[in-house]
Amino acid sequence: MPHSLHPQLQHDGHLLGQLGLSRLLLHRNALVPWFILVPEVEATQLHRMAVEQRRELMDEVAALSTVVEAYFECDRVNVATIGNQVPQLHCHVIARRRDDPCWPGVVWGRLPETGTTWSAQALATLTERLQAELELRPD
Amino acid sequence: MPHSLHPQLQHDGHLLGQLGLSRLLLHRNALVPWFILVPEVEATQLHRMAVEQRRELMDEVAALSTVVEAYFECDRVNVATIGNQVPQLHCHVIARRRDDPCWPGVVWGRLPETGTTWSAQALATLTERLQAELELRPD
Repeated sequence: MPHSLHPQLQHDGHLLGQLGLSRLLLHRNALVPWFILVPEVEATQLHRMAVEQRRELMDEVAALSTVVEAYFECDRVNVATIGNQVPQLHCHVIARRRDDPCWPGVVWGRLPETGTTWSAQALATLTERLQAELELRPD
Repeated sequence: MPHSLHPQLQHDGHLLGQLGLSRLLLHRNALVPWFILVPEVEATQLHRMAVEQRRELMDEVAALSTVVEAYFECDRVNVATIGNQVPQLHCHVIARRRDDPCWPGVVWGRLPETGTTWSAQALATLTERLQAELELRPD
């Protein structure tokens, strides 16, 4: 059975593609570059993952962080696994800037819902860069 | 030169001891069991850590999560590296319960400052358990 994405994650994000272990999503709210990695595992919490899989996830997090830090010229990358609302294991990787609307606070529960969205052109350019720098393939 | 703890972290937390790579703190606000690991590294962001050190940190996070999940009978462990306010690299490990005052939201910026504190007895019992189950030694 293929690994299915939780409906809330599907609703929240653009599916950019597939890394070695995880699906890569971009949150539809474009006020902050907010990525979500969804590893294809049964575990619902980080500490319940098999060690090798957790390492693979964290390698993906680190590689993605390096690329988005350069791409968005951000000041800080916020990384988190929370899952209080969506139980499927997922990891947030968020490019934060001092001039973003939530700085220095966190984004969860605080990002204005302004309807700001990623243009098709912005999504295509970003995806192209991620495909060039990560082993991202179409889902 | 010994690794010095950022004054804000020192202010926010009880120092419980030292793991292999990280100092272990417990946030003074006792409304939620909120741990902070401070790895003794120069890097200020997760993706800038040497791979082996990042793995060691995440092994510490996972081991701590397993112990606190059982100890506090929590529903979810939230794990995050944010650092928008305190640049020294630190990783939050928070035992969340459906009946805690922030659920299902995150704790950052949302935890009531009620002055609820850990008793000396609670700290001693918790530290004893952590010393028994993790390689935690006095700092």
